[in-house]
Amino acid sequence: AQLALERDYEAQRELETRYRVLLEANPAPLLIVSLANGRIVDLNGAATALIGATRAELLGAPASNELEGRRRGEFLEALAKVAGNDPLGSLDLTIRRSKRKVAVSATLFRAAGDRLLLCRLGVAEVARPRADDIG
Amino acid sequence: AQLALERDYEAQRELETRYRVLLEANPAPLLIVSLANGRIVDLNGAATALIGATRAELLGAPASNELEGRRRGEFLEALAKVAGNDPLGSLDLTIRRSKRKVAVSATLFRAAGDRLLLCRLGVAEVARPRADDIG
Repeated sequence: AQLALERDYEAQRELETRYRVLLEANPAPLLIVSLANGRIVDLNGAATALIGATRAELLGAPASNELEGRRRGEFLEALAKVAGNDPLGSLDLTIRRSKRKVAVSATLFRAAGDRLLLCRLGVAEVARPRADDIG
Repeated sequence: AQLALERDYEAQRELETRYRVLLEANPAPLLIVSLANGRIVDLNGAATALIGATRAELLGAPASNELEGRRRGEFLEALAKVAGNDPLGSLDLTIRRSKRKVAVSATLFRAAGDRLLLCRLGVAEVARPRADDIG
């Protein structure tokens, strides 16, 4: 039984590693948000960089603190609807800290009884160094 | 103790679901390959479609059965080297079944004592319907 527990532990560790690598290796900024409470469950480095905060600040924080739509707090429902109806659809939102516009597309899925949204933040313009950074 | 085991089981299930969603929601064809034995550990739907085989045929099969470089069997070592040296580098390979060229980039990571490669298959040309499919 001890051996079986150790095998389970190893398998869990390996799965965690693969999950983390998949999240971080994706060049798109990704957020996983719980529909039950609207909080950010996980996110990758591209997302923390785009939002302009630390991972510690963002984990567990309400997604609506960081992203805003036309009417506050309703965008998660709108995203879930987009995700359900049109896998290629997206919602235009604004990053609160930087006022930058992002096109957010989402995949809705169930895990452990909660509905989760995997959100991709699409940036229209490629980030470029500012003129005063160059010369 | 029973309750703790059930919690562990739930957590493992949730992690598996998130892992699977991340793998499948990525539009890029992705393969996870073991460096220890060269076999395909996992892959997403975009990769099965591009390779032109079923998931069952590909899971556990040697990656070198499906992808070929200039010299057979050495491309995994070459990929691991690319992954280690240059995160944006890629290796030109050919899909064996379709003879299609792909630029493969990779992320090397360790899990459960094995070294794994997360490989992204980049297709230069976008797939288009053939003329005789149109009309």
